[in-house]
Amino acid sequence: MKKINLYAESGFDDKGLKRLLVNDSPYFKILNFNFRAGQELPVHAHNLDGQISLAVLEGRGEFLGADGTTLMAEAGDVLVCDISKPYGLKAHTDLRLLVTIAPPI
Amino acid sequence: MKKINLYAESGFDDKGLKRLLVNDSPYFKILNFNFRAGQELPVHAHNLDGQISLAVLEGRGEFLGADGTTLMAEAGDVLVCDISKPYGLKAHTDLRLLVTIAPPI
Repeated sequence: MKKINLYAESGFDDKGLKRLLVNDSPYFKILNFNFRAGQELPVHAHNLDGQISLAVLEGRGEFLGADGTTLMAEAGDVLVCDISKPYGLKAHTDLRLLVTIAPPI
Repeated sequence: MKKINLYAESGFDDKGLKRLLVNDSPYFKILNFNFRAGQELPVHAHNLDGQISLAVLEGRGEFLGADGTTLMAEAGDVLVCDISKPYGLKAHTDLRLLVTIAPPI
C-alpha cells in the first residue's frame, strides 16, 4: 500500500498552478492541481483515446469546455470527459483538484 | 461535460456502505463509497491486472491491507494499489471515499 496526503504534500503557488504527481503507471496517471483564486487550467484537448476525471476536493470555480461553455465547480463535484474533448478549470477561490487520466498520457 | 456532485447525489446508510456509480467506461470505473463510523469495506483482492485509487474526501479511518496491515486514512489521503493486492478500509468517523479502478472491473 502506498499513500500520499495531498494536504501535507502540496500547497499553493502565487505564481501559477501547483502540480503534484500522485501516481503514474500503465493503468492511470493521478495528479493533484492546486489553484490560487483566479488561477486557471486553460481549455485544451489531446487527440487521444481515453478519459479524464476532475474531482474538486475544496474550493469553488468553474469547469471550462468547448466554445466558452462553463459549469459551476464546487467541492464534491466530479467531472468526467473524453481526453479528446476540450476541458479546463478556472478557480474563484483557492481550489484543490484531483485529476485521473486513463490510459495515462 | 458530465458532472456529478457527490455531496448532493449520495448520503450515508446506517445499514451498510452507501455506493454510488459515478462513471463506467472502457477506461476506468469511478465509485463513491460513503461509510458511517464503524462501517468497513472488508479486505479483498481481485486476481486481475490493474490498479485502484482510494481518495478520502472527508473523515478518518484506516486503510486495511494484507496480514492485518493498517495505514491511517484521513481527508486528502490517496492510496494506490494493485487490484491483485488485498485492500480495504474501516471508517472511524463518517467517511467519504472516491474510488477509481483502471481498467474497470
